[in-house]
Amino acid sequence: MKIEELGEIGLIERITKKFRVGKQIITAGAGEDDCAVIDIEKAKGGYKYLVVTTDALQESTHFPPGITPFQMGWSAVAVNLSDIAAMGARPFAFTIAMGIPAQTETSFMDELAAGIEECASAYNTAVVGGDITRSNELILTGTCLGFTDNPVRRSGAKVGDLLCVTGSLGNAALAVKVIMNELKVPKRIEEIAKKALFQPQPRVKEGIVIANSGVATSMIDISDGLALSLAEIAKSSTVGAELYEANVPVLSEELRREECSELSTRELREFAFYYGGDYELLFTIDSQALENDELMQRLRKEVKMSIIGKVVPPEEGIYFKKGEEKEMMDTKGYQHF
Amino acid sequence: MKIEELGEIGLIERITKKFRVGKQIITAGAGEDDCAVIDIEKAKGGYKYLVVTTDALQESTHFPPGITPFQMGWSAVAVNLSDIAAMGARPFAFTIAMGIPAQTETSFMDELAAGIEECASAYNTAVVGGDITRSNELILTGTCLGFTDNPVRRSGAKVGDLLCVTGSLGNAALAVKVIMNELKVPKRIEEIAKKALFQPQPRVKEGIVIANSGVATSMIDISDGLALSLAEIAKSSTVGAELYEANVPVLSEELRREECSELSTRELREFAFYYGGDYELLFTIDSQALENDELMQRLRKEVKMSIIGKVVPPEEGIYFKKGEEKEMMDTKGYQHF
Repeated sequence: MKIEELGEIGLIERITKKFRVGKQIITAGAGEDDCAVIDIEKAKGGYKYLVVTTDALQESTHFPPGITPFQMGWSAVAVNLSDIAAMGARPFAFTIAMGIPAQTETSFMDELAAGIEECASAYNTAVVGGDITRSNELILTGTCLGFTDNPVRRSGAKVGDLLCVTGSLGNAALAVKVIMNELKVPKRIEEIAKKALFQPQPRVKEGIVIANSGVATSMIDISDGLALSLAEIAKSSTVGAELYEANVPVLSEELRREECSELSTRELREFAFYYGGDYELLFTIDSQALENDELMQRLRKEVKMSIIGKVVPPEEGIYFKKGEEKEMMDTKGYQHF
Repeated sequence: MKIEELGEIGLIERITKKFRVGKQIITAGAGEDDCAVIDIEKAKGGYKYLVVTTDALQESTHFPPGITPFQMGWSAVAVNLSDIAAMGARPFAFTIAMGIPAQTETSFMDELAAGIEECASAYNTAVVGGDITRSNELILTGTCLGFTDNPVRRSGAKVGDLLCVTGSLGNAALAVKVIMNELKVPKRIEEIAKKALFQPQPRVKEGIVIANSGVATSMIDISDGLALSLAEIAKSSTVGAELYEANVPVLSEELRREECSELSTRELREFAFYYGGDYELLFTIDSQALENDELMQRLRKEVKMSIIGKVVPPEEGIYFKKGEEKEMMDTKGYQHF
């Protein structure tokens, strides 16, 4: 059945049934009223700051061929959660505005809604509201709310801080290359890379651990690519950065184990720095943290972090350092315009 | 200059400059970080509930010919404020995700951003964040946050309550008819009607007065038309409604003074009940309110309300009553699918 036949009211009823919210805190949820109603004292616990972010995904721009409706829904939540993670905040509520072509099948909508709910509830976030309009192409605009006591800003990095990144980079780029037929890899590797691209895992837990460590001075998510995000931190904090390329964790352990290909260093740098789609966190910590073994062990274990460089004065810019050689980093990555 | 030439980062800088936020409460605003950061204690004052709504406007569906970029921006905020108003809440923060065609002129974006800022600040709301993506057509998705102690739900209407509406209805419908060349009216009337359609005034102040009156039992905004909104209240509250059509305030005083046309009763009913675009509030109050002269005077003055019917048992449905005659109301209005 097409959603046209179901009608708007029927469609809203069908979708909102999938969203589970705890009535204790959310007294009105999706589809129930003009607004969602949240008991703010109960929701916020002891937290001091509310954080808000909004991010839209569009079929023509953001959804690579082969992605399922479930993964589209998942991604619409994940990209917003990643921004919440980048503040070191705990997400709690999510709204989704959907532009939907009239010819869409209801089964597609069911899977899409399931993906939204699954990602939100995986991160303890309630889908509290939304909007549905008729659109030429699929567009999913999410807005996410979170709480924190220690928002980690982009602007706090200072000279001497260590530059760190969570997880591994370039997995999404590898998938894009495979999808575009620019790279041939074994089926198993293709599957792993595509999972990274199609169903990103926002670093919510990691962001909170980093914020609570007491040593983080700045943080940003790197969804538009490591290079652009690093340039943002540099600009906001008025600093430069020295990068140790050999320390940059390119491709996940799983992919590296598979010895997937003979990618050149140059290609790996492209993957890690200049592609978007890796929902990892880039952050800086006070270098004194190195003297605290227990803290460093916890960060390495819970955050799976790598130290990839250090913060330098702004006039030095952002560069790769290898022995005595310096090579300036290009400031490029995913831009819409 | 086209926004393509300006680039995404340049565009974001240009737009966010227009958004003024008070740093006391909003410690990070639009374009400054991964999320907006709001000091929740300072923002909420003593309020108990946070309310959230999201609403999208799309060029092909929502923007009538002749609307200016400023009015598009204004509308994107106004439609969300109207949902906040319908809870009786005070809005305080707004985010805007914009899908923009690459060929858009920067001057268009400047006007759009000015409309967003102007509407938000007219209602004491800060534009705290957003997102910009490349899109085939213009799409503006707003999300608004507000606070209230007395959220007025759709579900509280009870038999015997009075059915009321703010302001006047059918002004937007008149403009649509004129734009579609289905109706010819003098230039001055055309201007007034178009202003109502292009630059709606959400009933934020009125919503708060109604919520604080202590006699309101349910409320909804009627942006999809009075008939559909009344059906929603009836469904949520499990009630029916008796309507006194002569009491329904069709067209604004200004338009009525102009004796704009010889519209038939049938046409006026169409305008008032079955068209969307009037951002008024439909609400019910306890009938005992009638005994409180002072309260009723205040409501009539501050809310410009009309009593258009009363709440009846659900099995009676929703009908127009004239003398002894009953005529069932159609449940139709603006639906996307």
